[in-house]
Amino acid sequence: MAIAYELLGAPTGNCQRVAVALEEAEIPYKATFVDLWSGRHRTREHLRLNPAGKVPVLIERDDAGNTRVISQSNAILLHVARKGAVPLLPNPNEHSHAIALERFMYFVTDVIGPNYAGHVLNAWQQPRQASLFQQMSLEAFELAEFYLADSPYLAGEHYSLADICAATVIAPSAGEVDWERLGNLKTWFDRVTARPGFVRGMQAFRRGA
Amino acid sequence: MAIAYELLGAPTGNCQRVAVALEEAEIPYKATFVDLWSGRHRTREHLRLNPAGKVPVLIERDDAGNTRVISQSNAILLHVARKGAVPLLPNPNEHSHAIALERFMYFVTDVIGPNYAGHVLNAWQQPRQASLFQQMSLEAFELAEFYLADSPYLAGEHYSLADICAATVIAPSAGEVDWERLGNLKTWFDRVTARPGFVRGMQAFRRGA
Repeated sequence: MAIAYELLGAPTGNCQRVAVALEEAEIPYKATFVDLWSGRHRTREHLRLNPAGKVPVLIERDDAGNTRVISQSNAILLHVARKGAVPLLPNPNEHSHAIALERFMYFVTDVIGPNYAGHVLNAWQQPRQASLFQQMSLEAFELAEFYLADSPYLAGEHYSLADICAATVIAPSAGEVDWERLGNLKTWFDRVTARPGFVRGMQAFRRGA
Repeated sequence: MAIAYELLGAPTGNCQRVAVALEEAEIPYKATFVDLWSGRHRTREHLRLNPAGKVPVLIERDDAGNTRVISQSNAILLHVARKGAVPLLPNPNEHSHAIALERFMYFVTDVIGPNYAGHVLNAWQQPRQASLFQQMSLEAFELAEFYLADSPYLAGEHYSLADICAATVIAPSAGEVDWERLGNLKTWFDRVTARPGFVRGMQAFRRGA
């Protein structure tokens, strides 16, 4: 049964991460811009889709008129990882699947987590503490140099959710990374961010796009 | 092929969460205490298992002498969710699987995430900012009252990773929750924390256990 995918979002890291995953999995989708500045995510219509009042939200509509909704960016990533023409996680029976989950969750909790805490603290006008969390996030990212010692991607031989998480979160602050010391990460970052699907996903919610 | 599981950990939330999951999935395992106070997680031996120098770490040994290692608490949860006698996630072909992922990731990023930021800020002796993050975590937890409006568990009809994440993170601060306002959550919390597997998992790494 054919499923039509619609991704509600805005140009935030959480939404870009999901848009990149859909692009890289080669899942056709419609990107619908939700204007956070005008509070569109707080309307009754949006809260019916996601009571937490956040984006992204993925809507799936099948031929029979059934509609299914899923929110939480990282849950959507896990959900779509095996839905597309290109899998974004190895086969669950392989140990490489466990490793991909390990690296994926590493970037979610150890890199994206403190990065988000930094954003919150900046919003609270606590720049000193914000910068400590951003430093923590950056250091966790740099530790990933190790993951690339023997393999082209962060979870091994195949491009996966781990690469998508790592590259999307670091892209906005790429200028702060000391790439000179991080040869593997530099090569990896340039290769990953040049992928057409990555570029399209990062731009999916550009205002007016 | 029979697999022997060993979980390296300490009495921290991240390790308790995994121990509860192993107990609830009915996966036999050996809990090995890693003394963080004496820096056991920073030894060369431990760093070989997990270069990030953290616990928990799950080691799997099969009959043929193969050893596999996976770290990152939430990755281990996803990995073991379908390995035991009792599944901790619905069948991936059901929409309830997507919903369980959504709720699981909600507690990981929106409840455990800010809770952890609060711990870090307390360690940095920033009690005011710490308390703001703890408040944020608590409010996200309380929003889960909504998830229980029509179902006994946080992701629907079945006990899942979402319940394990939510109950383990809130247990240490249960005294701060305004349960009077949260009837569904109160009933759920009492039921979940009384489960024998939950109790055993929370105590798996008690010093000297």
